Amino acid sequence: MSEIAKTPEPPYYVTIFANQRTLDDELGYQEMAARMNELAMQQPGFLGADSARDGDGFGITVSYWRDEGSIQNWRERGEHAEAQQRGKHNWYAEFSVRIARVERAYDFKK
Amino acid sequence: MSEIAKTPEPPYYVTIFANQRTLDDELGYQEMAARMNELAMQQPGFLGADSARDGDGFGITVSYWRDEGSIQNWRERGEHAEAQQRGKHNWYAEFSVRIARVERAYDFKK
Repeated sequence: MSEIAKTPEPPYYVTIFANQRTLDDELGYQEMAARMNELAMQQPGFLGADSARDGDGFGITVSYWRDEGSIQNWRERGEHAEAQQRGKHNWYAEFSVRIARVERAYDFKK
Repeated sequence: MSEIAKTPEPPYYVTIFANQRTLDDELGYQEMAARMNELAMQQPGFLGADSARDGDGFGITVSYWRDEGSIQNWRERGEHAEAQQRGKHNWYAEFSVRIARVERAYDFKK
């Protein structure tokens, strides 16, 4: 079973990426997604991420960051910026990005 | 294809619910989820929601709200509070809830 990301006490920041995949280039998409995951984990200020995609290609990725500057740096990192451009051309029919400041959090485990 | 929620200009609030389903009571879970969706849409301050669940039962639901008070009212609404309790007993092996203030947003459509 998946592990839900463990994050420090708020406040911290989050990007919410909701997206609808096209039916194109599944292999290229998978390679990019794995590579971006690997890169994000090396990025200063990265705190973790959760991701789910349903059978219709609708997905949500939530990534957690120490501060807004860390998100900005990740957004502008060369290889990631290139992936964003390819995403618009090939992989996503539609997406939304929201940047938010986490103020409260709690969790539950059986 | 799914429609990504349309929301007003920030600021507004979001709850991020990441969760791992148990393998139990799929029918009861589906009924509850449909009913909570229906109730949330009637709730004052509700702006929309996006949701995805993968084949392993890991899901993320993001719901958007006008302000923190609207989230609090929804959390405490009787039928929803009851669903939260049943969720801990039956439906979720693990979950996290984060409440955050959306500060920036943008979207893309082909």
